Amino acid sequence: MKLRNYGEDRLVAELTSGLSRGKNVRTSIGDDCAVIGARGAKKWLLLKTDCIVEGVHFTNRADPFQIGWKAAARAISDIAAMGGLPLHALVTIAISPTAEVSFLKAIYRGLESAVGKFGAAIVGGETSRSPDTLFISIALTGEVEPAQCATRSGGKIGDAIYVTGRLGGSIRGKHLTFTPRVEEARWLTKNFRIHAMMDLSDGLGADLPRLARASRCSFEISEQNLPLNTRCSSKNAISDGEDYELLFTISPRDCEKLESTWHKKFSKLPLTRIGKLNRQSAINNQQSLRGFDHFA
Amino acid sequence: MKLRNYGEDRLVAELTSGLSRGKNVRTSIGDDCAVIGARGAKKWLLLKTDCIVEGVHFTNRADPFQIGWKAAARAISDIAAMGGLPLHALVTIAISPTAEVSFLKAIYRGLESAVGKFGAAIVGGETSRSPDTLFISIALTGEVEPAQCATRSGGKIGDAIYVTGRLGGSIRGKHLTFTPRVEEARWLTKNFRIHAMMDLSDGLGADLPRLARASRCSFEISEQNLPLNTRCSSKNAISDGEDYELLFTISPRDCEKLESTWHKKFSKLPLTRIGKLNRQSAINNQQSLRGFDHFA
Repeated sequence: MKLRNYGEDRLVAELTSGLSRGKNVRTSIGDDCAVIGARGAKKWLLLKTDCIVEGVHFTNRADPFQIGWKAAARAISDIAAMGGLPLHALVTIAISPTAEVSFLKAIYRGLESAVGKFGAAIVGGETSRSPDTLFISIALTGEVEPAQCATRSGGKIGDAIYVTGRLGGSIRGKHLTFTPRVEEARWLTKNFRIHAMMDLSDGLGADLPRLARASRCSFEISEQNLPLNTRCSSKNAISDGEDYELLFTISPRDCEKLESTWHKKFSKLPLTRIGKLNRQSAINNQQSLRGFDHFA
Repeated sequence: MKLRNYGEDRLVAELTSGLSRGKNVRTSIGDDCAVIGARGAKKWLLLKTDCIVEGVHFTNRADPFQIGWKAAARAISDIAAMGGLPLHALVTIAISPTAEVSFLKAIYRGLESAVGKFGAAIVGGETSRSPDTLFISIALTGEVEPAQCATRSGGKIGDAIYVTGRLGGSIRGKHLTFTPRVEEARWLTKNFRIHAMMDLSDGLGADLPRLARASRCSFEISEQNLPLNTRCSSKNAISDGEDYELLFTISPRDCEKLESTWHKKFSKLPLTRIGKLNRQSAINNQQSLRGFDHFA
């Protein structure tokens, strides 16, 4: 069977089932990062790899600085989603020999700029020839205090579901220039018990079911409460993808304090309660949402 | 100017000059791995990323298990070149939606097989659509005791230069099935003072000048002493690339003991003294060698 007919989540589950568990690994495959932590360690190591591909994640008319920014910012966003800080980046670029040196240098400036903004550094990498398509893969490490480490699987029945920022329409430009929510995630995990968290990369419609499934819950959301970007409908907010906002759940007891302190700390960035986690039931309400499948 | 006319080493030097140095980073960009180690740490963290591209590193007729093996083994070879052991791998694959699921699964089995053979584990990754070309990028961590960590830059004037195995002709099959020299490198760095080491990926003609330059030495080799694979000339040994053997330097005082103990320990794998490091002089003897340039 061809990949495009198979379903991405099923594919990943099958590819990774039966893999041996690595030394000191504290996550299952499927979280935004792998978490490595020896017993008693003060900080855990986060490992993330991510790629962007010409014609899929950016067009051949995209600005090279922004291409580099996006490549790095996507991986940084995943480190943020675990409550961590990015540390060391390795950059792999496969590019046509007919590309201009100045083009590649501008990509690198975008990479450096994103990595540097969050206190991390590029420490290595690899360049290779590509027959045609430009391909950039970022491997990024990070660190997180065990008490601040957030995964997808910690959500509890009754939790309130929140998103940062506004959703939808990223393709009009934000997908190349977005700011990973490192500061916000650090603040959240330091000051609140965040039960489950991830970043929204494939759209709420794909990502919220993943968080709920990992937490063994179902969910409900109020579509009319979704925070929308300009010229976006709730359908855009659910399906467009590439929002790179935080999606997290928290006990309803903490909502009032969360909302009041958030608005003092991050007055320019909305924080919206969009729904709640429920007990799993026979009725699968997850089919009403649909996000981005990488192969469909 | 186009990349293909620029020279790979110059390009990498320019892309990475002026990058801020990361926290606890102990290597310069250009070594086989980045080395991260806090003061007093018992083990240092090694970080490596590497990619293989369809049409460059393998053809579209290659066996998918071997494609996976090669992708992982290349990165493992770089961990070995530092004297380290591989720990955690992250796999990024960009592949056409029209590819067969069974093809991708076979790639994964090759990846798992290589990673598992050396005691490491796949702990995460990313799959993406690619318009056409298949790309696989591996991010691999490893660990090494500070006393066993070998870099390219430690070579000293007068050092003997050695290579493991036989060189040349890898394109006829070995490049898809080679065994990274993890065990050999661990043994070497544990039992001898290895001054400088790297793995041979772009051919002796490209890689030895890099080691010599990093060590601020020049070099001489005896072409007639090069260990050759069947149906290979010394020209193949110098220029073909993808040998994935170890290239290292050691004090001439240690040669006798090295050679006698090596042959007892690794009786099936040749170890050959091919030349020595010299004082840098005005005469640039490095131009007589030529290996693989990724963009030329």
